[in-house]
Amino acid sequence: VVEAGGKNRKDSSGYNLHRLIIGSEGTLAVVTKAILKLLPLPRHRSILLAPFPTLERAAQGVNAIFWTGITPSALEIMDRRSIELGARLKEKEFPFMQAEAHLLVEVDGNEEDRVARDLEKIGEALVHVGALDVLLATERRKQEELWEIRRVIADALKAFSTYRGVDTVVPRAQITDLVVAAREVGEKHDLEVVSFGHAGDGNLHVNLLRTEAQATDEEWEAALHAAHADVVRAAIALGGSISGEHGIGLTEREHMTLRHSAPAIELMRNLKAVFDPNGMLNPGKVFP
Amino acid sequence: VVEAGGKNRKDSSGYNLHRLIIGSEGTLAVVTKAILKLLPLPRHRSILLAPFPTLERAAQGVNAIFWTGITPSALEIMDRRSIELGARLKEKEFPFMQAEAHLLVEVDGNEEDRVARDLEKIGEALVHVGALDVLLATERRKQEELWEIRRVIADALKAFSTYRGVDTVVPRAQITDLVVAAREVGEKHDLEVVSFGHAGDGNLHVNLLRTEAQATDEEWEAALHAAHADVVRAAIALGGSISGEHGIGLTEREHMTLRHSAPAIELMRNLKAVFDPNGMLNPGKVFP
Repeated sequence: VVEAGGKNRKDSSGYNLHRLIIGSEGTLAVVTKAILKLLPLPRHRSILLAPFPTLERAAQGVNAIFWTGITPSALEIMDRRSIELGARLKEKEFPFMQAEAHLLVEVDGNEEDRVARDLEKIGEALVHVGALDVLLATERRKQEELWEIRRVIADALKAFSTYRGVDTVVPRAQITDLVVAAREVGEKHDLEVVSFGHAGDGNLHVNLLRTEAQATDEEWEAALHAAHADVVRAAIALGGSISGEHGIGLTEREHMTLRHSAPAIELMRNLKAVFDPNGMLNPGKVFP
Repeated sequence: VVEAGGKNRKDSSGYNLHRLIIGSEGTLAVVTKAILKLLPLPRHRSILLAPFPTLERAAQGVNAIFWTGITPSALEIMDRRSIELGARLKEKEFPFMQAEAHLLVEVDGNEEDRVARDLEKIGEALVHVGALDVLLATERRKQEELWEIRRVIADALKAFSTYRGVDTVVPRAQITDLVVAAREVGEKHDLEVVSFGHAGDGNLHVNLLRTEAQATDEEWEAALHAAHADVVRAAIALGGSISGEHGIGLTEREHMTLRHSAPAIELMRNLKAVFDPNGMLNPGKVFP
């Protein structure tokens, strides 16, 4: 049993073991105790929903927000199909359902006037890059309604489609190129693409859905396999990575060599051997 | 040659190699290229200097600042002897030289009125916990004068004393206990203690100075050795660590066992062996 990390804001004594364990997907150690730092909940928050005529325009809106100098507490993108699927699952209408894409933006802070001013600036920036409208929600109930649109998408995909989600991530400035690339991959392989996610982090969940073009399960598996690799390649070509937050596990391990050089993977394998000489910790995961 | 890290805000693909390299003091790898993220310079900044009747009171001021919810861009503590030494080196008077301790607080941001309001709130909080006065500096020239007081201390120590600096760090809330413990260590070993540093990070540079009580170099070495270990023990007893920012190197390696368990040190040694099987990278440093 080893303890790593601690409550000190700075600690320059030996190697950063806890950062090595974080994200290692159970391949280095079994975490038996984790002490988390809590931040006080900000006293105020406000949300806006902005519809856009195209997905590219919404992605450009992400960059427009960061050029204001304001860092939102949440910044989510959703394409038209995400919203349609969510609305179908909840059996209700969402605002601006005809728009090709939406941004959901949340700002929080301890000063109400500052939160309001920041969100107003963001709204202006979004209209400037082509938002069709800006719907503000300052009341908690209305905020929950807008968040519900975003939260229901994953369940709707499960309910109404055969699909695989690819957890792409790119440097934030490349998010527009990524949404375009993902759509092109879908066209190439006759798959439907549903994109949504944490655009403010450059983290886009690109979902590849089976269509009528795949008559047999074999055709679907083949198209998915090829399209999945193409999406990962597109993200990496934009300076991105295989996975923003979901990890590698089994599904992405064959793509590790697209992201990391052979010496880097060899180094990681050797580090694992130090922690796990007998190969007992989540064997077969992460590495190709 | 291995590349690690990248421009993505999130990346869940394999182990966090670049965080392992950072702070490894050249014992794991030779860094041949580093790409840094730059933050835009905030448009406004403002500074205050607050004298206190005791060092403990100044340390309590650190916590009072964080209770306001404002995070300063700099928060430095200096004891009376630090200021005296600095003034002697620069051959001039600094403000409030009779005070036992000072806090230097900097706030920055893009909105001038907000910076002013935040610093005013901090000033009020400091007066509330016993600051003797609050000296505000909004002009650049005056700000540089106040910063000079802090910057000159290390040079003054070198010029006027025989000393060793101990780079203690504790969780921020323990900073008051640390300044008291450091003074007690000095009294116990007949050494003068000069404390200053990045109080906002819980990072205090405790300097142990030779006095007339150490007639011979051997007596000085013995007193220093014992006092140094006592200071490190005191920091660790408060939940702190050996070094906030200076690292371990040769001077602190014998204290590693005070901070890390034997299995943790063994693990670190084994990780080093993966990177450096022939023991060529900064040998003898960090580990006891």
